[in-house]
Amino acid sequence: MRKVLIYIAMSLDGYIARKDHRLDWLDEMHAAGEDYGYEDFMSGVDTVIMGRKTFDKVKEITGEPPHKGLTTYVITSQNRDPEGDVIFYKEGFIDLVQTLKNLEGKDIYCDGGANIIHQLLSNRLVDEMIVNVIPITLGSGIRLFSGGTPEQHLELVETRNFDSGLVQIHYRMN
Amino acid sequence: MRKVLIYIAMSLDGYIARKDHRLDWLDEMHAAGEDYGYEDFMSGVDTVIMGRKTFDKVKEITGEPPHKGLTTYVITSQNRDPEGDVIFYKEGFIDLVQTLKNLEGKDIYCDGGANIIHQLLSNRLVDEMIVNVIPITLGSGIRLFSGGTPEQHLELVETRNFDSGLVQIHYRMN
Repeated sequence: MRKVLIYIAMSLDGYIARKDHRLDWLDEMHAAGEDYGYEDFMSGVDTVIMGRKTFDKVKEITGEPPHKGLTTYVITSQNRDPEGDVIFYKEGFIDLVQTLKNLEGKDIYCDGGANIIHQLLSNRLVDEMIVNVIPITLGSGIRLFSGGTPEQHLELVETRNFDSGLVQIHYRMN
Repeated sequence: MRKVLIYIAMSLDGYIARKDHRLDWLDEMHAAGEDYGYEDFMSGVDTVIMGRKTFDKVKEITGEPPHKGLTTYVITSQNRDPEGDVIFYKEGFIDLVQTLKNLEGKDIYCDGGANIIHQLLSNRLVDEMIVNVIPITLGSGIRLFSGGTPEQHLELVETRNFDSGLVQIHYRMN
């Protein structure tokens, strides 16, 4: 069965973005000229699930839809026509993920935001989680773990340290 | 100058205890017969600062005051007579820490709870932080980082992985 994977950056104090969704605190990590295994990770997936706000935010920053060439499901409460490989998906998000897991193919990457990840965790649909712990405390922002998910034991797969101070922790969810 | 050090266990989702203060989710880590460098760490300190609730909780669990042989300041809003090496400290907690830092001696260990750590971080009084990330998500509890501390860049000193899945991350606060 295809796996649902999360690959995400989090400050030591648990935030994935500032309150206004800004990611400027990650600039220093990017400046190090290191991709932190991202390309390698992405070579193992062919499908992306992400929230509408996250999708629009990335599109605004980079000027184009993220994940070109991959089938991308954007979860939204609005009606919106497909854009290239991007499908806007309105109903039964959890059913969609369960269906996708049973299809043939490479793995499925959940690219956020926090609310989509929260729902996947709540339904125990995440198979592996790669958390990139950034050496900073932000003090406020949008939390990766806002609380209310079921207690879940994790299996440590590996950790990697980088010169920038980023610590990558890879877990398998049991 | 003496350093203020934090050495603490946190679930991946940022909790240091359940809502009712229980630490049963750490039992599996202890059962592994590994001390995660705790004794070595403690050999570098001669003074402990901790909150009254944490102090009473440990005393309740173990049947005796924690950190025997070390000068221990317990921060409380109540009047309470000293017990052996334990001094109950009622006023000017931040001033106390600044005074202690300027005295001769080994380093100072802050043994929690979350509120005491929060106040130290808010006043930029923590010099190093050793976070033991436990391979579990709890979904609720008492957060290590409840928010509202100043943004702070951290310097990664080292990480250590253990067979139990615990990942120890050591930061120097800049």
